[in-house]
Amino acid sequence: MARVALDLMGGDGAPEVVADAVVALDLDALDIDLVLVGPPALASQLLFARGINVGTNPRLTILSATSGVLMNGDPLSHVRTNPNASVLVAAGAVGAGAVDAWVSVGHSGASVAAAVLSCGRVPGMSRPALAVVLPATSGPVVLVDVGAAPEATANVLTQFAMAGWCYATALGIPDPAVGLLNIGSEAGKGDALRLAADTLMQERLPALGVRYTGSVEGHDVATGARAQVIVTDGFTGNVLLKGMEGAVGWAAQQMALAYGNAIPARAVVAGTATGDFAAGMLLGVNGITVIGHGAGRPNEIAACVRMAARAAKSDLIGLTQRTFSTLLERAR
Amino acid sequence: MARVALDLMGGDGAPEVVADAVVALDLDALDIDLVLVGPPALASQLLFARGINVGTNPRLTILSATSGVLMNGDPLSHVRTNPNASVLVAAGAVGAGAVDAWVSVGHSGASVAAAVLSCGRVPGMSRPALAVVLPATSGPVVLVDVGAAPEATANVLTQFAMAGWCYATALGIPDPAVGLLNIGSEAGKGDALRLAADTLMQERLPALGVRYTGSVEGHDVATGARAQVIVTDGFTGNVLLKGMEGAVGWAAQQMALAYGNAIPARAVVAGTATGDFAAGMLLGVNGITVIGHGAGRPNEIAACVRMAARAAKSDLIGLTQRTFSTLLERAR
Repeated sequence: MARVALDLMGGDGAPEVVADAVVALDLDALDIDLVLVGPPALASQLLFARGINVGTNPRLTILSATSGVLMNGDPLSHVRTNPNASVLVAAGAVGAGAVDAWVSVGHSGASVAAAVLSCGRVPGMSRPALAVVLPATSGPVVLVDVGAAPEATANVLTQFAMAGWCYATALGIPDPAVGLLNIGSEAGKGDALRLAADTLMQERLPALGVRYTGSVEGHDVATGARAQVIVTDGFTGNVLLKGMEGAVGWAAQQMALAYGNAIPARAVVAGTATGDFAAGMLLGVNGITVIGHGAGRPNEIAACVRMAARAAKSDLIGLTQRTFSTLLERAR
Repeated sequence: MARVALDLMGGDGAPEVVADAVVALDLDALDIDLVLVGPPALASQLLFARGINVGTNPRLTILSATSGVLMNGDPLSHVRTNPNASVLVAAGAVGAGAVDAWVSVGHSGASVAAAVLSCGRVPGMSRPALAVVLPATSGPVVLVDVGAAPEATANVLTQFAMAGWCYATALGIPDPAVGLLNIGSEAGKGDALRLAADTLMQERLPALGVRYTGSVEGHDVATGARAQVIVTDGFTGNVLLKGMEGAVGWAAQQMALAYGNAIPARAVVAGTATGDFAAGMLLGVNGITVIGHGAGRPNEIAACVRMAARAAKSDLIGLTQRTFSTLLERAR
């Protein structure tokens, strides 16, 4: 069983779309206890309108919170000055051990701030990273960071590699190989950051039992043949992820024309949005935090909840803490 | 008419694949005079085996050069110490005015070095940038830089924006808007480089009559709705381009399964490789330089030759020189 808190007030279509996501989840089959975080009267009313009676559903509870987070302004100061904001109450429920994981599709900067404030960082991890799982040709690929840290150092990228490896391992990918996203696979390629990160990863990763493939290129993200964990700074990762999503959308349009039928093409695109792909896992905080698309539809938000439960059941946090603790002990 | 030099010795499949590309070109219909650069006996023999007699073909001549460039080692020093290397002879033919454009699918670092040495940089352009034209949903999009300069400054990105705008204009895109590739479209998003570049572009581009859209995101590259010239550093652009190519390949595989027929999907992928997409245009040098994929097939190399001729006929170099000259005069 996994207990997952879901921020009712986050996201472009909140709270209605989040309530729709609750309906889309088969909590019994998934063995999830869901905690909906928002104004209780509103939450009850939204669910009642969708045929769900919170009072009689043992899988569903409501945790009181006042409001969402503004999309503009400094998210950290907003979170700090609004202790009853749903994003902070949801993250706080994980920090306090009341639930095992939390999910928000609200402002991602606010979610990162709430997770760090409420759960704390994993010792040895300078800053959190956002990871997604892509359905590559040879199997799932973890891409990290896709936007939590737009600027990184070689040390930060190496931490992201370790955290990404823990995530891939927790997801059941056997002996995942780590690759550094670069503009060529030969040694000596790339900018100063990549050159320094390559040296550091070669030095640190094998000592932790992590296979390091070296540099991989943009096309390796879609194939997954050379590495199952692909590491980059949040600027490059965010641009790449959105660029690949755009390219798949473009291809679907072209395919619909080429085949004279748009329906199968649309199904392929929809599959990328509702699978594991939809969930951004925040790595490096002491609590499972899933950040989804602000414009996410109900089935995408439901996919985020399923991923949160899956990470909780596979003890992602424990594995991450142990891996970083080993590194810190060796560094002493 | 356009006179184009083609490096016979560059590329993974050279010289055979380059000779196949010559066969694939209808030089009369394209109004191209082609100069094949390589060892004359080898060039004649390869063409003769493909049914082409150089002696009797008025559209085709051979320019003598000795050898290709090694794939490893420092390309600049290699080019400097091998004046008869085909890449340098081909670039030199443009620098000397013997031809209007040159094409190589060999080592891209060597091609950039040969272009700079033989043709010189456009005054006001600190370093050259590699641009591709992507077949976006709303029309062609120029993406610059895709790998010539892995590290950039705000000033360099602004130069790339101007050079990319000249390329889009030379290609006939009406009043192209320039966008800065970023991780969010709101002001204040991105890393330090993007913040500084946004300020500089706002200040400089409108004064040159160039529309500046502000920040655009990864998915905007495939749609082309917000900007027709999208500017980034060579690291991000290279990763993005290869990632999008990978994503289209992945989508084609999924579509082939979804539709139960791989043929139309393969045709869509092949179209991206043989269209304008295949040709990397080196911007900021005083001579039209097209750099293609090292693994390019004959029809991709032929597409590079067509793009070189198109840029020559539309006076890309003159437009670029005049645009930068205006900026330099204003800066005085």
